[in-house]
Formats: sequence, structure tokens, C-alpha cells
Amino acid sequence: MSSKQGIPSRSENYSEWYNELVVRAGLAEHSAVAGCMVIKPHGYALWENMQRALDDMFKATGHVNAYFPMFIPKSFLSREAEHVEGFAKECAVVTHYRLKMDPEGKGLIADPDSKLEEELIIRPTSETVIWNAYKKWIQSYRDLPLLINQWANIVRWEMRARLFLRTREFLWQEGHTAHATYEEAEEECLKILDVYRSFAEDWMAVPVVCGVKTEVEKFAGADHTYCIEAMTQDLRAIQAGTSHHLGQNFAKAFDVTFQSAEGKLEYVYATSWGVSTRLIGTLVMAHSDDKGLVLPPKLAPIQVVFVPIARDDASRALTYAESDRLAGLLRDKGIRVTVDKRDKESPGFKFNDWELKGACVRIELGPRDLENRSCVVALRDTGDKSSMPLEAMVNDMPAILNGMQARMFEKAKAMRDANVKRVDTWEEFDKTFEGEGGPGFVLAHWDGTSETERLISEKTKATIRCIPHTPFDPEDEKPGRCVITGKPSQRRVIFAKAY
Amino acid sequence: MSSKQGIPSRSENYSEWYNELVVRAGLAEHSAVAGCMVIKPHGYALWENMQRALDDMFKATGHVNAYFPMFIPKSFLSREAEHVEGFAKECAVVTHYRLKMDPEGKGLIADPDSKLEEELIIRPTSETVIWNAYKKWIQSYRDLPLLINQWANIVRWEMRARLFLRTREFLWQEGHTAHATYEEAEEECLKILDVYRSFAEDWMAVPVVCGVKTEVEKFAGADHTYCIEAMTQDLRAIQAGTSHHLGQNFAKAFDVTFQSAEGKLEYVYATSWGVSTRLIGTLVMAHSDDKGLVLPPKLAPIQVVFVPIARDDASRALTYAESDRLAGLLRDKGIRVTVDKRDKESPGFKFNDWELKGACVRIELGPRDLENRSCVVALRDTGDKSSMPLEAMVNDMPAILNGMQARMFEKAKAMRDANVKRVDTWEEFDKTFEGEGGPGFVLAHWDGTSETERLISEKTKATIRCIPHTPFDPEDEKPGRCVITGKPSQRRVIFAKAY
Repeated sequence: MSSKQGIPSRSENYSEWYNELVVRAGLAEHSAVAGCMVIKPHGYALWENMQRALDDMFKATGHVNAYFPMFIPKSFLSREAEHVEGFAKECAVVTHYRLKMDPEGKGLIADPDSKLEEELIIRPTSETVIWNAYKKWIQSYRDLPLLINQWANIVRWEMRARLFLRTREFLWQEGHTAHATYEEAEEECLKILDVYRSFAEDWMAVPVVCGVKTEVEKFAGADHTYCIEAMTQDLRAIQAGTSHHLGQNFAKAFDVTFQSAEGKLEYVYATSWGVSTRLIGTLVMAHSDDKGLVLPPKLAPIQVVFVPIARDDASRALTYAESDRLAGLLRDKGIRVTVDKRDKESPGFKFNDWELKGACVRIELGPRDLENRSCVVALRDTGDKSSMPLEAMVNDMPAILNGMQARMFEKAKAMRDANVKRVDTWEEFDKTFEGEGGPGFVLAHWDGTSETERLISEKTKATIRCIPHTPFDPEDEKPGRCVITGKPSQRRVIFAKAY
Repeated sequence: MSSKQGIPSRSENYSEWYNELVVRAGLAEHSAVAGCMVIKPHGYALWENMQRALDDMFKATGHVNAYFPMFIPKSFLSREAEHVEGFAKECAVVTHYRLKMDPEGKGLIADPDSKLEEELIIRPTSETVIWNAYKKWIQSYRDLPLLINQWANIVRWEMRARLFLRTREFLWQEGHTAHATYEEAEEECLKILDVYRSFAEDWMAVPVVCGVKTEVEKFAGADHTYCIEAMTQDLRAIQAGTSHHLGQNFAKAFDVTFQSAEGKLEYVYATSWGVSTRLIGTLVMAHSDDKGLVLPPKLAPIQVVFVPIARDDASRALTYAESDRLAGLLRDKGIRVTVDKRDKESPGFKFNDWELKGACVRIELGPRDLENRSCVVALRDTGDKSSMPLEAMVNDMPAILNGMQARMFEKAKAMRDANVKRVDTWEEFDKTFEGEGGPGFVLAHWDGTSETERLISEKTKATIRCIPHTPFDPEDEKPGRCVITGKPSQRRVIFAKAY
């Protein structure tokens, strides 16, 4: 418990630092229902900002929203052979629709008379229920493409829950599109992958690698899966978003055909893609420090916090009034501002509290500052403090926030790039993955088989995060020898320990 | 099947008119999962507009959003005695967390080894799970008030589903607030009631009566329940929103106390309040006509649609280009516009289609209009068509839309007011409620007992919608004799057949 906030430092215990920080900063907490979380107002405000930005990007690329039932008939799940393998193992099953008082006095029980003929699954993902609806919606090539997104809650019965990273219920968006050709579906997949990359980099200030998953790691039911992969401060990988080309798999499973322009009956091509509240975990892992959250200005619920400092009632009235006035000017510029008027708390307490919660800029305003028409401006990411004239502070604030946004991305990118390494022998590879935390992104040769991939992962807990679209170095795309089997390899792929 | 759209007219069969219209207009459809609906893109766009407006109003009154688990341990439901009575009867029960292939070859079954120790209920409302969390969040009067809202999906196992009006899963918002005093909770309840009234009247253009529910009709677990009640075109009542004063019931059930400013330990006072996708059904029932949806401009997904009319490729290019230019000018004014460029469809088909979907204003633009620098402007609510110079159309469009918004409210209010009647004898009362549809709002005297209320409802299907806050006439608040028992009555209350 080294920090002022009473949470372990990252170097002491990264894992505990994350768990404690998420709770202490008011983002989320564990609920009474095992494995589920409560997303608290501060965490939800962050999610709302993410949602708004993503939703705008989806709409700008021609997508519309809809809502499909969260219940999936058990039989739907079995229709696609790989899909059922992937999702039957961890789903919540609804078997009854009524409770009643036990006649033997044991309290409330599921009424045996209300047993469902067919059990319902709570969606672990919605391909099946959506493609069942698309069958009615798609007859002709003129009904295509169908570009639909859904914001929804999802249930996967994870055994080891971690706030935002793995919970039994989580929030996400899932896009489900239908196309006339393989090529058009492929284009959609890559377009969305770029939306995700752009959101991660331009909004979250988190650099990501775009690439394709291996057969072992792809979505159950996909032809192939694209992903964006970020790096955490403990040098692990975290999958931040996926975009799946589903080929004609779900169209065949749900018999969705269309009349082509040439009059032929053909199966529809599909994509699906999603990001979830896991992005919040990714954000925390990428930027935050031992004092608390560090949030990129574009997404931070509080961009500027005023902490008026008063000696007495008279100076309190003055600093409060001036803070309110300045806050109003910043709000007029579209900046998210709050004025901390908690009378019972000391300035020191407030400084710590807002550092914990990740306010981007703190403005300290005391009686002497007022006399000088200046204030102290403290930046959350660097910790820099400087005095600024009030007018300049107001005028420069957009630039200050933009500067922080850019700096946070550059810092995260420098950290990421400094932790990309190439390993060519098994001895070194095995050693690299020892111990807690991760070694960053390890570029190594792999013989391309699922067998070898599983072997490596059993021995080291390293998984192949992706085959990157753009190599860190052109040399990475040249052939070599698999790091464990010595068989020919076409190119290096990214290994990492993943969240 | 009298109308152009192939749906029954309201006078032929109001119920079928509604059911068909919702589907044909692309708002929603029944899903393969019995009792659940798919909210299609057009319906969801309407919901998004409602959400945005309501969310802004909640935030402007000091509320923040959060998200609580949808799973509720069975035992939570039993903690509040009235609550369990109200909600145990119609809930989805999760009993297992895994599927597996049946060893006897019967396909996928709930894995017996995955049976939950305690069954989980899918939230029919979230008071229990939220007050269980509030216990940790509230210690002192300084933690109060707590003003939290949640946007979520809800499950109630309705036996007779109707799109938007009654489905097993629906979307809603639920506010859950905590206060130090009864009075403050009361003030919150009424503040939200007014937010709902204002949303119904100013955004939906639907006049509502604000009032308080009787004991029979109040929320299971509330001290008392306020509501807004609207009237449909078949002269029934529809409850559009409720705001509950929960007293200390849930605080006692979940042991949530706080240290008052005077240092005493006291139970917290609570409110909860919600509106749901049922508002979409209310909107359709209040305004739409035999041609299709009539949507208030403030909420309509499409406010203006351009239908360019072409003779040939050359005139098509010209009318498309001019429509795009004008659409751009309207978009700059914040108007939601689309240009219908479907080449294979006739203008007549498009007119019908946009009438069905409820575009507020249709602009027809043909080659001759272009020559005259004018266009034909058709209003969805009145059916009026007139020619306007292009510049005037662009300049006047905000006023045209505002005019329609006001006109729709006035029309609905006139219909509502024309169908408020007073009935004083049982013979007349009984007769008034005969037949299909409803008789509007019937103001009658009632002796104030739940027994009599239930008796009346058994005999006539009429229920007491509310005891209105503002009487239609001051005389309504004077004492009289109960319409069925003849016992003393304090004032008239509103009876109606309700959806």
C-alpha cells in the first residue's frame, strides 16, 4: 500500500493495482451476483463517451441500430457446428418462467409447472438470433447490404471474473452485416477494423496492431477474424476489438439466400464485429499510474476540475464565483468541467481525489491567484504545474487538452514500440515468457499449424495475438524456421501473454 | 383491407390496424422466441430519439447513469413482502450455466453439473439488486441524495404479447434515487412525473393526465405511485410512465441506513421511476392514421424526405443533384432529411411508403418544379399539399415542423378532451363500458376501497387509471356517492379500459 490513494503501485503488484484502482476510482465494483459487476456512474460516464464516439463512427459508415431479443432458443445454437462448440460451454440457461412459494415451506422455488418446452440461452453473441431474422428480411440483392449494429448486454459464464476484462455479464456493441459477395463482406470487415483502430488510437490514445487471428484464436463460426491488439503497462497483450468475416456459414445454417441481379439464388455473406466494456479495462491498463486514472481528454468524463481554495467565508464566496464564471466559459467551448465545492474536504484531499478519478486538468484558484488574475494549472498525465493568467487558461484549454491527448498516445506508443522483440531460439522464447507480467510483443517464427500453436501455448502461456497487417519491420515478413519445431515458417507472428 | 397500405383501417379493426401498422412500417416484428420482439432499425431510430431527449432531461435534473447486473438472486426478490407478490409470477429463471451434448444423443441439454446453487432471476425491475448495492454506497447524509438512472432490458413473462405494449423482453430506463427525508423523496417523485409529462406533451405531442394510483394499481413495494395516462384513438387509456415513492420499504428490506446530520442512524427514503419502449406503442396509438405512422417532428427519424421525380436520365441527374443540395441546406439547420433515390420505384410507391413510415414532410421535385425554382410540399399530418419556392421551403422548414408538432398536440388534446365524461349511475356506467374499444376517460365517484375497485373491474373491465392531480373541472373534486355502492365518495376518479 505505497501510494497516497491506498492502492498498491504498479511495480509492487500490477494485478492488484488494477483491481483496486478500478474500484477506488469509482469505475465499477463486484456485485452480489458472483462474476457480475456494477458499473458505477464514473465508469458509466466513460462508457457513454465511448459509445457516443463509436456510434457516430458506425453511422458515418452507413450503419443503423436495431435491437434483437436476448433469448436464444437452445436449438439455434446447434445450427452452426463450430459456433455451438465455442459458445455452449459458458452460457446462462433459462428453464422456467415463474417462481412460487414452496408448498413445503422452503421459500421461493421455480414453479415446476412453468418449465419451458425448449430452454432459452441468454445471448453470448447474437449471430444466430439475428440471422434467423435476416432470413425474413433478405430476398433480393436489393435488400443488400444490410448494415446493422446493436448495443446490448451479453452473458458468458466466465469462471474467473475480473472487472471490465472478464465478467459474466458485460455491455458491448455487435455489428451484423449481410452482403451479396465475399469481397464486399471482406471490405466491410476491414472498414470496421479501421474504425476500431481509429477509435483506439485517436480517442483512447492507445496504439494497436491490426492483424488477422490464427485458426485457433478466430471466432467460433467465422471464416477468419481480424483484431486490434493493444499492450498493457505490464507488457501483456489485450485484444480490444474483433471483426469477423463469417463467409456463408450463418447464411447456410439459417438458410438465408437472395436472388442476385442475374436472377440466381445465392447464400448471403456475413460479417460480425464488436467491442465491449473491456475497452475500459484496456484504457486503464494502458495509461493509468500509481496515483490513479489517467484518461485521454477526448473520453474523460471530467476534463477540467476547479478546486477553489478559500481561507474564510468571504474568500470562499469569491473563489467559488470566479470558478463558476470560468467553468461557464470553458463549457461554452464544449469542455466537460466541474467545480469542486465540497466544503468539508481539504484542497489536498481534493487533489488526490481528482487524480484518482482521472480529471485531465486541475485548476487551483486561491485568493492570491484571484488578485493576480491567474490560476495554477496542473496536468494529470505529466504532473506539471504552472501558473497562467485566467484569460490565457480559458483560451488555451482546448490546445492544452489536445496536447495531452497527443502526448498520451505518443507515450503509450513509445512504451509499446520499446517492447517489441524478436526471438529465434526456443530456449530464449521459453525464458522470455517466464515470470509474472509479460515480455511485450514477441515476434517469432511459427510453422503455421494449430498443433504447434497449442503446444507453445501449453508450454509458455504465450498465445499468437495476430499475424499483423503491417510489420514492425519488413524483415518480419520474410521466411524463417519455427521457433519450436524448426519447420519452415512464412513470416514472424506476434506472441504475447494475453489478458 | 381498405387502405392503400394493405392494413385494416382504424374503424374496421383498431387492434389489427395497430398490429399490422407496427410491422408494415418497419418498427418491430415478432421474433422466433415467443413473446419477444425485434425492434427494427426504423423503430430503434425512434427509440434513440426518445432516449436522447429523456437522457438530457434526466441529466439536466441532476441524475447520472450507471449499470447494474441483470441477474437477481432469487432470495433478493423475497426480501420485500409486496414486491415478491408482484414480481415472482412472471419472471425468467436461470438454473444452469452450461450446455452439453446429451450422452444419449438427444442433442444439446443443460449440463446437470452446471446447476446453480441459487437460481437467478432476470430483472423484472431492479430495486432489489440496486438497493443491495446502495447499502455499501450510503453511510452518511453526505452521500445523499443519490440520483441514478439506468438504461436496460427487462423481462416479464407476459402471456399475451403485443408489440411495444406488452413483450416478454422490453427496453426501458429506471431511475433509483435515495434521499434523507420523506419530503425530499416526494419532491423527486413529482419532479420526475413532471419530466415525464413534459416529454409526453412537448416531444411526443401526447396530452397526459398526471395523477396518483390507487392501492390496487400501485407498484408492488411502493408507498404510492404517480403516473401519466394518455388516451388512444380507440378511447382507451394507456399508462405511459410511473414514478414511485418507495418510502423506507427497500431501505428496510436491504438494511440501508445513514448517519443524519444530527448523528442519528436512519433508514433511507427511496424513489423509482420508469418509461419504456411502450412509449412507442403509445405514440403510434395516439397519432397514426389509416395511411400509416404520423410521428411528431421532434422525434421522427425522418423529418423531411425528398422524392425527386424524373422523366429520363438527364432530368434524374438534375433533380437528384438539386435534392441533395437542398437536403444539405436543411441538414445544416439540424433537420433529419433523406433523399429517396430508389430508381426502380415509382413516385406513387414512394409517396405511400413514406406515408407509411411517417416522414413528416415530403418534398416533390420534378423537372418543371426545377424550372420554376419551386417544389411541392406535402404535410403528413393534414395531408395538405402546396407549391413553394425552393428558398422559402428551406427557410420555413423549421417553422413548418414546429407548426406540425403544435398541431398534433392540439389535435390529440381536442380528441382527449372530447372524450372525458361524467357518469353517475351504475346502469349508465355499466353500459358505457360495453363493446370493443373504450368510452374514453369516465369520471365517476368511488368509495375509496380496494374491494369496490376490484368489483367494478370484474364487472366492466374498467380500471381506475388515477386520481388526477388537476381536475378537468373543479366540480370533480367535490364529494358524492360511489357509482356502484352508493357509499360516500370524496371526489371523482378516472375510470377507463386500459392497454
